[in-house]
Amino acid sequence: MTEFSAVKESLAHQAIELPSWAFGNSGTRFKVFGQPGVPRTPEEKIADAAQVHRYTGIAPTVALHIPWDAVDDYAKLAEYAAEQGVRVGAINSNVFQDDDYRLGSVTNPDPAVRRKALDHLLACVDVMDATGSRDLKLWFSDGTNYPGQDDIRARQDRLAEALEAVYARLGDDQRFLLEYKLFEPAFYTTDLPDWGTAYAHCLKLGDKAQVVVDTGHHAPGTNIEFIVAFLLRENKLGGFDFNSRFYADDDLMVGSADPFQLFRIMYEVVRGGGYDPAAGVAFMLDQCHNIEPKIPGQIRSVLNVQEATAKALLVDADALASAQAAGDVLGANAALMDAYNTDVRPMLAELRAEQGLDPDPMAAFARSGYTERVAAERVGGRQAGWGA
Amino acid sequence: MTEFSAVKESLAHQAIELPSWAFGNSGTRFKVFGQPGVPRTPEEKIADAAQVHRYTGIAPTVALHIPWDAVDDYAKLAEYAAEQGVRVGAINSNVFQDDDYRLGSVTNPDPAVRRKALDHLLACVDVMDATGSRDLKLWFSDGTNYPGQDDIRARQDRLAEALEAVYARLGDDQRFLLEYKLFEPAFYTTDLPDWGTAYAHCLKLGDKAQVVVDTGHHAPGTNIEFIVAFLLRENKLGGFDFNSRFYADDDLMVGSADPFQLFRIMYEVVRGGGYDPAAGVAFMLDQCHNIEPKIPGQIRSVLNVQEATAKALLVDADALASAQAAGDVLGANAALMDAYNTDVRPMLAELRAEQGLDPDPMAAFARSGYTERVAAERVGGRQAGWGA
Amino acid sequence: MTEFSAVKESLAHQAIELPSWAFGNSGTRFKVFGQPGVPRTPEEKIADAAQVHRYTGIAPTVALHIPWDAVDDYAKLAEYAAEQGVRVGAINSNVFQDDDYRLGSVTNPDPAVRRKALDHLLACVDVMDATGSRDLKLWFSDGTNYPGQDDIRARQDRLAEALEAVYARLGDDQRFLLEYKLFEPAFYTTDLPDWGTAYAHCLKLGDKAQVVVDTGHHAPGTNIEFIVAFLLRENKLGGFDFNSRFYADDDLMVGSADPFQLFRIMYEVVRGGGYDPAAGVAFMLDQCHNIEPKIPGQIRSVLNVQEATAKALLVDADALASAQAAGDVLGANAALMDAYNTDVRPMLAELRAEQGLDPDPMAAFARSGYTERVAAERVGGRQAGWGA
Amino acid sequence: MTEFSAVKESLAHQAIELPSWAFGNSGTRFKVFGQPGVPRTPEEKIADAAQVHRYTGIAPTVALHIPWDAVDDYAKLAEYAAEQGVRVGAINSNVFQDDDYRLGSVTNPDPAVRRKALDHLLACVDVMDATGSRDLKLWFSDGTNYPGQDDIRARQDRLAEALEAVYARLGDDQRFLLEYKLFEPAFYTTDLPDWGTAYAHCLKLGDKAQVVVDTGHHAPGTNIEFIVAFLLRENKLGGFDFNSRFYADDDLMVGSADPFQLFRIMYEVVRGGGYDPAAGVAFMLDQCHNIEPKIPGQIRSVLNVQEATAKALLVDADALASAQAAGDVLGANAALMDAYNTDVRPMLAELRAEQGLDPDPMAAFARSGYTERVAAERVGGRQAGWGA
Repeated sequence: MTEFSAVKESLAHQAIELPSWAFGNSGTRFKVFGQPGVPRTPEEKIADAAQVHRYTGIAPTVALHIPWDAVDDYAKLAEYAAEQGVRVGAINSNVFQDDDYRLGSVTNPDPAVRRKALDHLLACVDVMDATGSRDLKLWFSDGTNYPGQDDIRARQDRLAEALEAVYARLGDDQRFLLEYKLFEPAFYTTDLPDWGTAYAHCLKLGDKAQVVVDTGHHAPGTNIEFIVAFLLRENKLGGFDFNSRFYADDDLMVGSADPFQLFRIMYEVVRGGGYDPAAGVAFMLDQCHNIEPKIPGQIRSVLNVQEATAKALLVDADALASAQAAGDVLGANAALMDAYNTDVRPMLAELRAEQGLDPDPMAAFARSGYTERVAAERVGGRQAGWGA
Repeated sequence: MTEFSAVKESLAHQAIELPSWAFGNSGTRFKVFGQPGVPRTPEEKIADAAQVHRYTGIAPTVALHIPWDAVDDYAKLAEYAAEQGVRVGAINSNVFQDDDYRLGSVTNPDPAVRRKALDHLLACVDVMDATGSRDLKLWFSDGTNYPGQDDIRARQDRLAEALEAVYARLGDDQRFLLEYKLFEPAFYTTDLPDWGTAYAHCLKLGDKAQVVVDTGHHAPGTNIEFIVAFLLRENKLGGFDFNSRFYADDDLMVGSADPFQLFRIMYEVVRGGGYDPAAGVAFMLDQCHNIEPKIPGQIRSVLNVQEATAKALLVDADALASAQAAGDVLGANAALMDAYNTDVRPMLAELRAEQGLDPDPMAAFARSGYTERVAAERVGGRQAGWGA
Repeated sequence: MTEFSAVKESLAHQAIELPSWAFGNSGTRFKVFGQPGVPRTPEEKIADAAQVHRYTGIAPTVALHIPWDAVDDYAKLAEYAAEQGVRVGAINSNVFQDDDYRLGSVTNPDPAVRRKALDHLLACVDVMDATGSRDLKLWFSDGTNYPGQDDIRARQDRLAEALEAVYARLGDDQRFLLEYKLFEPAFYTTDLPDWGTAYAHCLKLGDKAQVVVDTGHHAPGTNIEFIVAFLLRENKLGGFDFNSRFYADDDLMVGSADPFQLFRIMYEVVRGGGYDPAAGVAFMLDQCHNIEPKIPGQIRSVLNVQEATAKALLVDADALASAQAAGDVLGANAALMDAYNTDVRPMLAELRAEQGLDPDPMAAFARSGYTERVAAERVGGRQAGWGA
Repeated sequence: MTEFSAVKESLAHQAIELPSWAFGNSGTRFKVFGQPGVPRTPEEKIADAAQVHRYTGIAPTVALHIPWDAVDDYAKLAEYAAEQGVRVGAINSNVFQDDDYRLGSVTNPDPAVRRKALDHLLACVDVMDATGSRDLKLWFSDGTNYPGQDDIRARQDRLAEALEAVYARLGDDQRFLLEYKLFEPAFYTTDLPDWGTAYAHCLKLGDKAQVVVDTGHHAPGTNIEFIVAFLLRENKLGGFDFNSRFYADDDLMVGSADPFQLFRIMYEVVRGGGYDPAAGVAFMLDQCHNIEPKIPGQIRSVLNVQEATAKALLVDADALASAQAAGDVLGANAALMDAYNTDVRPMLAELRAEQGLDPDPMAAFARSGYTERVAAERVGGRQAGWGA
């Protein structure tokens, strides 16, 4: 196995992006459980996200969701973030929560609705211009619930048209990350159901269109690390929306349902060059802390990604490659498992200490009194959630 | 194939129960799209349900959901239903929408929450006493999201305790129907995840505890008709919550995703004696019309069940049995498929005509002007939905 | 709905290709059950396939599998087929049954094994030259069973190299159809696990590389008709391997597990222009008749595809399009379902009568005495199966 | 976390049963790859199994499969095992490989076939009498491939009848373990598809009928540890057939696909009292080493179970219980994960050293030269496999 000292530097520059919406309330169609101290404004979300970075040291950016994080002055919001010690990351578009989008947004049979949706996407690029964001994340809930409801192929034509228009609007240092999802909220067809569809659209558009892999958006049994390896080989992996699932798009904390899968994904990222900052892969969380407290939930998630990354970096590439070349099935598997079975927590605690961080971020945050303080301060107003 | 005339009588006495909540707004965690004319009160829901019965002739009862349909005077509500030409059916309990239920209801680690949940269930039996309902439907969203979150076995103990208390409260002509569900809203464990768990609990309690099969609550690949056949053999099939799914608990219109599966289920019902009214199997819909209009959505669903039932009744039992006994794989399959491939719509139109109904319920309802009338009348107030 | 007379001509020219191996013995890893009268030679397989065409009129070609159908003189085999009234169709390569392929064929870490596998693929093109076949079907069982066993990306490089070499060898009127499969026999990674991977490779190679959709090769919940529509839009749908599944790659008779899905697939084929012979889409069966008799199993399958096609052609495209454009969810769904619910069997019987065929192919074949004759004649020798 | 010293004793008495058939050749329907040195006789399989025990110290018994391990003198075979340092464990019945079983064994529509199958099961109890085995493992491949093929309910009646007859034959210290499986080799219905069906049959029969959980036999998404916890609560968990899967019944090495799941299962075993030898839970492997060498594959698997068990025993039960009682979602999850994230390999090496074993069983076996010796010695004869 690779020496820990050799991977320490790589770990030190890791950067995981937090989603502003993870700090707001979330839930299922059955119930959204509110929590005390939940932010009411984009600024309060950013302040909470900054706490995660403060204790982990590797969560320097916050993704925004428009219109949930809409403000009058984005430059000012970016300044506020900087004061908190973080930066604004990707801009996430939202074309699924207006009544007009009942039958779709950019693939809606009604051209007026398509135009409205496209205008929103273009406005998101305006926000990027103001915040200096590099990435526009595009997720479309578009699809149908019943066979025959709409024309599958015509919807692809409409999708392609919208993507072209957005692509044309991107600045030189901007790109979009196209997200796919098997199902939900559409229950028969989804217009971007799998990586292949997203890849095909991105390929036609060019280098500024990249695929984003949400780890909860696949059919049961899908081998996600294969997709990661394949997209890296094609230079089409733009980033990740990390989270965990046992069933569908459960949006649990990343690494909580299948930590071995997370390790395998991070191994393919490392092996394929995706961990090199120059590769431009964005490592983002996209989660719902429906029942657990949000800031600790995010800290736990960041630590889970960090631990998986440390294990992936520890893999002895030479031992692995030589076992693979020799057709030594058990030996090659063992080379990988040796790294996975290592307890990297002591090493990471040591790394944090060297960086002037508390070795135990969860405990340090708990001791800080932040939770109690915001619960007391954030009284009145409307707690942030998916609806606002 | 059996002659249609021979099955006509069976079809004439079919009874499908409608869920009051299908007439209110519903959606996903991403968005609930409101629709014009949606009911604002339990009475308006019942009035809408009565329309479905008026045009199909086989939807004589309406299930209530407490507290969504809570009223001061249930006897009066029952009278109102009678005036509309329908009756109150099963009472559906709801122990998932109070903030207290964040970590469960009857399986919550906190005894006070368990007590509160149990009290609600007992109060539902009071409603049954007032409405004359036979069935209490018990669905628990209880479960956990993370490994270790709570003790799986202790939660079973708590569940058993609550079920015993409810069972003890049931009157002589009352029973409860215990529902199971693979996942959602809980994403790691669900305390009643499968038919086996529901069956085991019901078996210990006695004849007044029966299992209800929601057709959308299974793992991918589950053979639902096998479960139906098995529960009928054990005298433990209390009823159905019908709906369709392509992926998870999509709650689409029954028969819209896999009409052949619905036929196979109805065939096992018929073959196992479950279609005989004396068997006490409740045929209920439980659906969400997220994007389609609700009353027509319910009519369509009732017709889908009726068509599947007609086909199931048409199966030539003798031809089937003799091919099965002979080990004639293709012959036995053909005997079943012959009925499935039959177009039963003309026969059912004829049946309706004989009963004084319009042969085409969808068209007749559309022509009636009801949709336009309620859209105009039901202005102001708050539309019914899952939250109220 | 479209008039039947209008679709009759389309139905008359339908062509479904039969797999020679469907007439041999097959089974699971647990047991292969032999059947009396099973062919022992490629010629006997072709003779059996010709029976299917004789009674259905729409199964004019037989796919060969090399080396299972290896003969010394392929031109002579093609002549034999012509005498039986059928033609040789696609050539199916087999690089999974030699001991050398334990760790893969064209993606094996050992270059010597890769070379051997490639040589076989090139030899299959030689067979095509001799038989006049247009299509080479490429299925690779290549993959790994354990994480770390081999390098995912390196295997893609090796795959690409092999595909390029085969592509370069194709004649002007030849093409290859690249098959993908989620899993089996590899249980961790498969080198061509989904349509996206096959598509990406084909796209780089050119027009003579097309994707083939085996209806049993997807993850649970995958919307196959979406893939069909997408590939047709991209001019990359080369053909189908039809069969049915409830669970994995069950290889049951097409249309037996989910006839509605088959209809939806055929509808997208028709809608996307794929039913036009000029589109070059190959409609092939790929099935295992493990427990049912093989020739009747193939006849039943051909009829199932024919019935689904008839229904797809009956869809009233104008009614559907106008309901879709109007956002009429139930109306659009009804337009599709109206065709599906139609019993097309009488119409197809009529079509057969007009073509001089028996209206009931299953009964006619049963009456013919062929089964009894070959059971008596084919004594001695070794029955064909997957191993030979 | 619990101190390692406290769990050492528990680990020392662990006992994992090996399947004789894991040492023979296996594969998929596509190909069985033979390996040099594979046993040709039951004795050679036992000798190989004894190697696994020799290096791990916790694999003292070997399960037999009848007729694959049929011998004239079972008492003598038991003696041979004792000489090798192991004992004969469970007897596995096989009613799926005779031609008669094409349409089922104990559920076959033909009473003569049912009788034959039952006779085999009873003969297996004779073998138990001779070997002193406690457990009869019953797995039935029975089911159907096509809707309508046979009567689901009648097959349950036949199954119940056979189970009763076997149960009646059991001696005082004997029991049977009833296995369930979602699918394969049957592809439409399986007569024992899930734990609920097996449980219901066992419950009626009595204490000597117990359910066995094969970890590869569930629908996607099934929470296996829930089933384990439930069956333990009901005193109906007879044992495990351990293996791993990514997709279906892949039969990979246990712990190789989802080591976290294996840990969760072992945690529920420990928590529910199933690790106490008095509970009578049999911990058996049931795997196929299709491409990797068999003895090392078994050693690796035994070690994987041992590591998961060590982690499960290390869980701090008090910390976990108090976090659960407090509704501390993240704290409770962390208590579990703390144990899982521990690297137990050094502790287990220490334990082995104390027991006089080599700390590294894989390396020690590799060094032993056994593999080379048997490859040289076992020449001629027919290698064992599923067919013999």
